[in-house]
Amino acid sequence: MSIHLDDIQAASKRIAPIAHRTPVMTSRSFDRLTGVAAFFKCENLQRGGAFKIRGASNAIFSLTVEERARGVVTYSSGNHAQAVAIAAAHCGIAATIVMPDDAPRSKLDATRGYGAKVVLFDRLREDRVVIGQKIAAETGAAIIPPFDDPRIMAGQGTVALELMEQAQDLDSIVVCIGGGGLMSGCAVAAKQLRPDIRIFGVEPADGNDTFLSLQAGRRVSIDPPQTIADGLRAQAPGTLTLPLIQQYVEQVVLVSEDEIRAAMRFFLTRMKLVVEPSGAVAAAALMHGKLPAGLKRAGVVISGGNVDMEMLATL
Amino acid sequence: MSIHLDDIQAASKRIAPIAHRTPVMTSRSFDRLTGVAAFFKCENLQRGGAFKIRGASNAIFSLTVEERARGVVTYSSGNHAQAVAIAAAHCGIAATIVMPDDAPRSKLDATRGYGAKVVLFDRLREDRVVIGQKIAAETGAAIIPPFDDPRIMAGQGTVALELMEQAQDLDSIVVCIGGGGLMSGCAVAAKQLRPDIRIFGVEPADGNDTFLSLQAGRRVSIDPPQTIADGLRAQAPGTLTLPLIQQYVEQVVLVSEDEIRAAMRFFLTRMKLVVEPSGAVAAAALMHGKLPAGLKRAGVVISGGNVDMEMLATL
Repeated sequence: MSIHLDDIQAASKRIAPIAHRTPVMTSRSFDRLTGVAAFFKCENLQRGGAFKIRGASNAIFSLTVEERARGVVTYSSGNHAQAVAIAAAHCGIAATIVMPDDAPRSKLDATRGYGAKVVLFDRLREDRVVIGQKIAAETGAAIIPPFDDPRIMAGQGTVALELMEQAQDLDSIVVCIGGGGLMSGCAVAAKQLRPDIRIFGVEPADGNDTFLSLQAGRRVSIDPPQTIADGLRAQAPGTLTLPLIQQYVEQVVLVSEDEIRAAMRFFLTRMKLVVEPSGAVAAAALMHGKLPAGLKRAGVVISGGNVDMEMLATL
Repeated sequence: MSIHLDDIQAASKRIAPIAHRTPVMTSRSFDRLTGVAAFFKCENLQRGGAFKIRGASNAIFSLTVEERARGVVTYSSGNHAQAVAIAAAHCGIAATIVMPDDAPRSKLDATRGYGAKVVLFDRLREDRVVIGQKIAAETGAAIIPPFDDPRIMAGQGTVALELMEQAQDLDSIVVCIGGGGLMSGCAVAAKQLRPDIRIFGVEPADGNDTFLSLQAGRRVSIDPPQTIADGLRAQAPGTLTLPLIQQYVEQVVLVSEDEIRAAMRFFLTRMKLVVEPSGAVAAAALMHGKLPAGLKRAGVVISGGNVDMEMLATL
């Protein structure tokens, strides 16, 4: 159930009809500030505003005709929900998204806008995974989980595959970690393409489940994180993602909420890019000297750009 | 003193060492909303945050060795000032920028940060052009005017030259108008490359000097505009820019302040791009149905992205 470079290469072909090949951007100011030439992979400019369309479409496009006919179901209030809705609509199949009843109206509307059916649940009294499984059992719909799935991980790994084609001779790749789908996929792609490349993961200090899991040598679960990086609030790494992170990631470092905000502000004012808190986490680690000295050319993933105007205004 | 396509093609080669070939972006949401396939030329991602580096560097790189040795001077509180400072620093020559003493500290600091000398003046009691000419007379520095200059106009025209290479088969080009440097250069490039292309200009309703000048058939001067599109507050079109606009531009349309804000909000929330008010004016015209029906593939210039965080917060 692990993944390999050829799974990611196959995913790259599979998702080409739906996912953008996002641009890689650079900034003289950032490079001067950090002493590292940074190559930003702009998944904030991806369809649906985040990298999630890669994994979701790789999973959905991998279904058989019979499986597709029964539709798909997922549980997420975030970027994965919209990605599943977009990919399902692209194939003309039914999608059911289990979302908390206190999710922002804008997210509910956006998900419904893509044609998905939204099932609401009470976060305090119900378990979204159980509800998703119940819907799958009743309807025969295929579950598209947010990260702990080889098809999802392979899809997300296409981010690093493209980045290494677009920016030559990188000595390192820096990626944020939530459940580890993006991190594990990117690590496999980069390391199996170029074994001498160095891979770094970054988590918010208040969302350090993978950091703790690596220290403990096993999956550690934490209390629900409160970080503004809402895409990185997983409470534990996946059973499939953690072993790949253990194998390939040199170090996981932590950034503070203020460091995340400073990176968002840099993107807005200097690079004219809207980046969501989770999307700024990898860059924040470089900006604030959290990575080992001596890096020269770093590929840095901007994972998404979906942020409320109200949150932006607080910057 | 007019310009031709070959001036713009020469400018394109001349400025290549300093100006970015900015990306062209598209948005399914925008196309669905307007019924037009729009190709956005992202000069907000240009060096210095606006297209101005093109004209400024074309003018400065055109100077002889003797002229360069005496330095350059300009009068601007906006994007042109920083562009002149960047281009002068690139050549290692002295730049003097005449700026109002009430300009935002951030702009003064940024201009000085590029190594330029800033000379302050009192907007209510002094004339910036007179001060610039006095400095030029005393020091022998070359004046780099903001728009009414063939080298500037040719430099700005490279925006359309690139756009037409990057997006095939455009039926129209939509450009904002301040003093008309960008508009005239883009009109010459596009029309002399493809005489059947349609060219549209857009001004803020409270900054309609070119609109009125076209109606009157001569340069008309207006009171200082109050529009939030601070890059488009010219009080009259140039003596060199207006004739080219009369010759090539099919129509100049006007947009309201609210329409400009709505376009900025669309760029921020849907395309994850920070666009300054002036930069959103051309898109605002398309979004709000100000252009003739029947356009199919429009090239739309986003002229810049330099906007205060405070202003963004008001959106």
